[in-house]
Amino acid sequence: CIPPMAPPTCLDNITGQNGIVQVVVDTAEKKTKSTGLLDADEFRRQSHQVVDLISEYYDRMGDYPVHPSVTPGFLRNLLPPDAPFRPEPDAFSSALKDVRDIILPGLTHWQSARHMAHFPASSSTIGALGEALTAGINVVPFTWAASPAATELEMLVVDWLGKALHLPDSLLFAGGGGGTLLGTSCEAILCTLVAARDRKLAEIGGNRICDLVVYCSDQTHFAFRKAARIAGILRDHCRAIPTCHHNMFALSPTELEAAMQADVDAGLVPLFLCATLGTTQTTAVDPIGQLCAVTAPHGVWVHVDAAYAGNALVCPEFTEVIDGVEAVDSFSMNAHKWLLANNDCCAMWVKKPSALVAALGPEQDLILKDAASEGHNVVDYMDWTMTLTRRFRALKMWLVLRCYGIQGLRDHIRNHVRMAEAFEKMVKADERFEVVTDRKFALVCFRLRSQDKFGGADKQPANRLNRRLLEEVNAATSGPYMSSATVGGMFILRCAIGSTLTEDHHVSDAWKVVQDQATIILHD
Amino acid sequence: CIPPMAPPTCLDNITGQNGIVQVVVDTAEKKTKSTGLLDADEFRRQSHQVVDLISEYYDRMGDYPVHPSVTPGFLRNLLPPDAPFRPEPDAFSSALKDVRDIILPGLTHWQSARHMAHFPASSSTIGALGEALTAGINVVPFTWAASPAATELEMLVVDWLGKALHLPDSLLFAGGGGGTLLGTSCEAILCTLVAARDRKLAEIGGNRICDLVVYCSDQTHFAFRKAARIAGILRDHCRAIPTCHHNMFALSPTELEAAMQADVDAGLVPLFLCATLGTTQTTAVDPIGQLCAVTAPHGVWVHVDAAYAGNALVCPEFTEVIDGVEAVDSFSMNAHKWLLANNDCCAMWVKKPSALVAALGPEQDLILKDAASEGHNVVDYMDWTMTLTRRFRALKMWLVLRCYGIQGLRDHIRNHVRMAEAFEKMVKADERFEVVTDRKFALVCFRLRSQDKFGGADKQPANRLNRRLLEEVNAATSGPYMSSATVGGMFILRCAIGSTLTEDHHVSDAWKVVQDQATIILHD
Repeated sequence: CIPPMAPPTCLDNITGQNGIVQVVVDTAEKKTKSTGLLDADEFRRQSHQVVDLISEYYDRMGDYPVHPSVTPGFLRNLLPPDAPFRPEPDAFSSALKDVRDIILPGLTHWQSARHMAHFPASSSTIGALGEALTAGINVVPFTWAASPAATELEMLVVDWLGKALHLPDSLLFAGGGGGTLLGTSCEAILCTLVAARDRKLAEIGGNRICDLVVYCSDQTHFAFRKAARIAGILRDHCRAIPTCHHNMFALSPTELEAAMQADVDAGLVPLFLCATLGTTQTTAVDPIGQLCAVTAPHGVWVHVDAAYAGNALVCPEFTEVIDGVEAVDSFSMNAHKWLLANNDCCAMWVKKPSALVAALGPEQDLILKDAASEGHNVVDYMDWTMTLTRRFRALKMWLVLRCYGIQGLRDHIRNHVRMAEAFEKMVKADERFEVVTDRKFALVCFRLRSQDKFGGADKQPANRLNRRLLEEVNAATSGPYMSSATVGGMFILRCAIGSTLTEDHHVSDAWKVVQDQATIILHD
Repeated sequence: CIPPMAPPTCLDNITGQNGIVQVVVDTAEKKTKSTGLLDADEFRRQSHQVVDLISEYYDRMGDYPVHPSVTPGFLRNLLPPDAPFRPEPDAFSSALKDVRDIILPGLTHWQSARHMAHFPASSSTIGALGEALTAGINVVPFTWAASPAATELEMLVVDWLGKALHLPDSLLFAGGGGGTLLGTSCEAILCTLVAARDRKLAEIGGNRICDLVVYCSDQTHFAFRKAARIAGILRDHCRAIPTCHHNMFALSPTELEAAMQADVDAGLVPLFLCATLGTTQTTAVDPIGQLCAVTAPHGVWVHVDAAYAGNALVCPEFTEVIDGVEAVDSFSMNAHKWLLANNDCCAMWVKKPSALVAALGPEQDLILKDAASEGHNVVDYMDWTMTLTRRFRALKMWLVLRCYGIQGLRDHIRNHVRMAEAFEKMVKADERFEVVTDRKFALVCFRLRSQDKFGGADKQPANRLNRRLLEEVNAATSGPYMSSATVGGMFILRCAIGSTLTEDHHVSDAWKVVQDQATIILHD
């Protein structure tokens, strides 16, 4: 259904030609004879086996227990201790058989309709094939020159995505900022923190790194604390401001202000705030606008980690959670979590790309520019991040946006939110249970109520009860797979709806398993 | 040719059962109805289009100029400024058409047989399909529990690979060390540097980061300097020891010793040495054993960055370059460069994984352990690296090793080395040219000799000549694509053989282009 490949064209943005110019290619050149390792026919043959395997895996996903029943070390006993010297005959078929028989059964099936434990890694066929295409093409776009179309598509697609998520122009290339696609939010947080750190040190003196202080809440993902440690911030200069249940575990601007002032009074220098949209434990939303008002007088860089909830911003009904986002310095979200862009795909936007380049770019001119890019202010993405080698992730993200459309992505998000609402309703209808925090997106945090009729302060008995409940739920082979968190001293269960394959009946079935297990436990 | 998928099995390492136990799965469970976004039939249909596109791309690779003739901004004019709200009819076919007509022609074709510029990103069909399979399965193995078989296969495959590369047992799991698969060497360098830093700071005091000094040569990849900056090492505490031509640009142990002693005398603390096997500019090899002898008394962490040349260690004839490697603390190489494991795949090994975990692991127990892993000393790979989300890269690396075998990988490397030898011989046979550094692997560094018959000290005229030569070579549409370096004040041309598709005639044709352009330039 696609016409045969046209002769290669050479693109150039010559005015009036709409960018397309035909170029004479020396057709006398010998037709490339493949070595067998990258042979088109071999690729076709092997591809069909892979397509069969993946298709069957999707078809049979419901048959697997979400979480395998294996113990550490199981695989080492099933495979030889050394790579083969010569491959066995038809090694690829035989390896794929092992994938089916040994590896797949030992995986946690993140794509299972009953995977409700972690925030999702919601797959799509387009996302998977975008990755396949990227791997097949296999370019390394570390600079513009190293693969111009890859850099340019990335610049385009981060603007597409940023607009789709209702981000302000100031974070887009179209408005003087700009974005990039990384592997994970951990990288985004580290890159922006290093940019902020070097900007601040340039101001106060390069050897004052031990005076810098960074801020987050006690709900912030530990990725931030890890990034701060990597960046050389003293371990006891990372302030995790306590949150509380009555404030739904959101970071309090008043508490933050007090902490920053105390540090300033002690001669320290506030550097960076990592605010979260949708914390891992309960999807708490930090009030961005109010926090920025507090940090501004201190010249603090504000980064928003919207790894999970940033995906929901594709739906206008969620954009109230980014009120005030115009004031932030940077923003990141994982499109591989909930926007059908298979792992990995973290989008990061910054207001001032120059700060990233100052910290992560070259200290002197390198040899990697080519004649075409010289004299142009091109984006060399390796100067925005910590790595040189990078993958052409933009192709996948562009395919996902183009093939599902903004409407398709909204439907996907809303479908899960609707199912989470239904689950929440079922929890609320059973008086043995309580919903612990208001559901905002597609995570429901719930628990068995304390059995202490007098509301005793000791949370341990109820925690033990709920821990046991989770273990029993997850032990049911054909049941859901859920996870837990501990907030405000309470052990809670997390039901995160977000697998692409999850449908209403999976949610009601999951709740039935929880109820049944609760009945057994409470009877004991 | 693969039998239909067997019913899912549940693996466990119960003694005497060889790890395989059949488990009853509730077959009454409703067959998962796909939502369309992850539908097996849709996946098959779309896959065939992608397979066609990639196969044709491989077939037609020789028709593309290696480096496109485009100017910055060309792509933005060819694609709409916003993502579609609703996808167009048959959006996937139409998007793939744009990939063919707009994106592919704007890429630098790293897989072209005539790509001789950068170190290769040598593709294979197995590497590409390993990535495709990984993306299709789409698990997120940040902990053992989050996907047991993914972690265990990674542990196995880094041992397979380490043994294949003749690394010492002390770096393998089998010998008390261990490895992991990351995206890039930049990550490996940063992770090991942070581990070394935190170990040293624990010894000398946490607030002495400004006293730490790191070492490399003036040939070391700038990734190291960048990693040191990210890790908070003062910019002027990164010592790039000068190298010289007569020593083939290798790091001198004597010079290193002097630099470290000077720092110690100044009250500073030597922390880390990044030695290189196969520098980017000329594939210089730092003498690992001798360097370790010098660093040992100072308690310096030695990391070996073997991003490129580490691949060649699969051939026993190259292992002399790692004499003394038993003494290093860590080692990394990019299997995506030259071992047919498509981008990205960096293997990192450390002697003491506990140092990584101390720096990058959790400061308190997290919620991510499950019942099966509790009480076991499992590897949670997120504690070894800077990121939480990671990809199941082990599957690809395992397939490559299994399907090509060690012999196949040796043939692949030796084939390129042989072609580089041939190129070197041709350069040497033309008295207008000189080979600048002894070829060790598959990179030939050469230049037009200075035209100054009296051997004048001014290198600029010869440099201008060679710069022009490179520009003319790369401007030839059907010619090779080469790159340059500047060493010892000399501008040199780099011819890096390593594309999977490169054959003898590409190398002789490339040399012909260089000779012809030289004749024209010298005539002028």
